[in-house]
Amino acid sequence: MEKNLINQKKKNAGIKGASLVEDKMMIGLGTGSTVFYLVEALAKRVKEENLNITAVATSSRTASLAEELGIKIKQLDEVDHLDLTIDGADEIDANFQGIKGGGAAHTLEKIVATASNRNVWIVDESKMVNELGAFPLPLEVVPYGSSKVYERLDSEGLNPKFRLDSKNQKVLTHYHNYIIDLHLGVIKHPHLLAQWLDHQVGILEHGLFLDTVNTVIVGKSDKAEVIPVIRK
Amino acid sequence: MEKNLINQKKKNAGIKGASLVEDKMMIGLGTGSTVFYLVEALAKRVKEENLNITAVATSSRTASLAEELGIKIKQLDEVDHLDLTIDGADEIDANFQGIKGGGAAHTLEKIVATASNRNVWIVDESKMVNELGAFPLPLEVVPYGSSKVYERLDSEGLNPKFRLDSKNQKVLTHYHNYIIDLHLGVIKHPHLLAQWLDHQVGILEHGLFLDTVNTVIVGKSDKAEVIPVIRK
Repeated sequence: MEKNLINQKKKNAGIKGASLVEDKMMIGLGTGSTVFYLVEALAKRVKEENLNITAVATSSRTASLAEELGIKIKQLDEVDHLDLTIDGADEIDANFQGIKGGGAAHTLEKIVATASNRNVWIVDESKMVNELGAFPLPLEVVPYGSSKVYERLDSEGLNPKFRLDSKNQKVLTHYHNYIIDLHLGVIKHPHLLAQWLDHQVGILEHGLFLDTVNTVIVGKSDKAEVIPVIRK
Repeated sequence: MEKNLINQKKKNAGIKGASLVEDKMMIGLGTGSTVFYLVEALAKRVKEENLNITAVATSSRTASLAEELGIKIKQLDEVDHLDLTIDGADEIDANFQGIKGGGAAHTLEKIVATASNRNVWIVDESKMVNELGAFPLPLEVVPYGSSKVYERLDSEGLNPKFRLDSKNQKVLTHYHNYIIDLHLGVIKHPHLLAQWLDHQVGILEHGLFLDTVNTVIVGKSDKAEVIPVIRK
C-alpha cells in the first residue's frame, strides 16, 4: 500500500515531466524508477501527438525502454546540443542543490546534465530535504590506488564506505570504477565539499549536483508541483 | 650524435635519482626513457648493495623492466605508503611546477605521486623552462560526451586537440579514455587553469602537477644537478 502510494507520487512527477517536452526537442533522459514513468508518459505523447523528438539516455536501461516504446535514441556525441534533460535525484535541499548517484550512474548523468541547456528533476516528495547528507554521497573512484583515496577520505572524517553488491564484491560502474559512499549525515557546506572533492586525485566524479537544476517537479499523491528554480 | 648526448643527460639524471633510494624504502617508479636509466641504475644498486626495497610502478612497461632486473614490484593498493617516487616530467618551470602526460599515463602517475611522501623528478636539461605551455597539456577525458568537453575547451580558447595514434585513431589510455592535448604556448596562471580543469565534468585528470615535486634532478652532459625545492 505504502509502496503503491510512492509509485503514484513518482508517476505524477513523471507525467508532469513529460508535459514539459516540446516538438523537435533534443532531450536527455535520466535513470531510475521515476524516470521509468517519465519515459512511459513521454512515449505516449510522442505517439498521440506525433512529436518528433530525439533523446540521449544516461543508461542502457533507459535507452532500451525508450526505444522499445518508440522514442528515437542517439548517443550524446552524435547530437550537437540538448534542449532539456529530465532526471531523478536522490536528495534535493532547500536551495535546490542535489545528490545523485544512488544508481552508480552519476558521472554519466552529470556529463549529460552539463551538456544540457536546461535541467529538470522529477522526484517524489520524500526526496525534498532541508539539508543534504542523510543520503550517502557517492564518489566514482578509479580502482588503482582506491585504498589510498579511501584513507584520505577517512582521515578527513568523511566516513567513506566502498559500495558492495549482494555478493559482497565492490560495485563496478559503467566505466569499471568503484563507488565510495560518504556517510555524512549532514552536508553543511556543499560547495566547499564539492571543490575539495573536485581537487582530489583518483575521483572521477562526485554525486553533488550544485546549481544544476532549473525546474524541480515534486510528485505528491494527487498531483505534481512544478517549482521553477531562480538562482541568485 | 645529438641523440646520444640527450641519452647521456637522461642517464646521468637516472643514476643520480637511483642514488637517493635507501634500504627498506617503498618507492614509486614512473615511466619513460629517463626512468629506464633510473631502473637500470637502481637494479644495479639493489644487486651490489643487497638493498631490500619494494617498488610500485606507474606502467606495465616499467613494472616488467624492474622485475626482470630483480626489483620487487607490488601494486599500489598492496602497500601502506610510499617513501619516495621518482618519475620524469615533460616540462618543469622556474617555480618547479610541471607538466606530465606525454606518455598518456599522467592519471596513474598522479595517483602514485599523491600517495608518496616525497617526489623526485629526473629530467634532461631541455625540460627546464621558464614558463609552462610549449609542451601540450594532456587531459584524460571520458569517451562518452568527449565531443562536448572538446567544445567547452575550444570555446574557452584552450586550443584542444584529440591525441591520435599512427593510424589516426584516438589514443586510448590505460583506463580506456581519450587524451585531449591543450596547445597553449604559454600557461600564465597554472593554478587557475588547474582549478578550472578540476571542476570540469568528464575530465578524469589533467597533466598539471603543481606543488608536487620535492627534488628536481637535472641531467647534463657530464653530471646531474640536484635541486631541492623549497615551497613558500
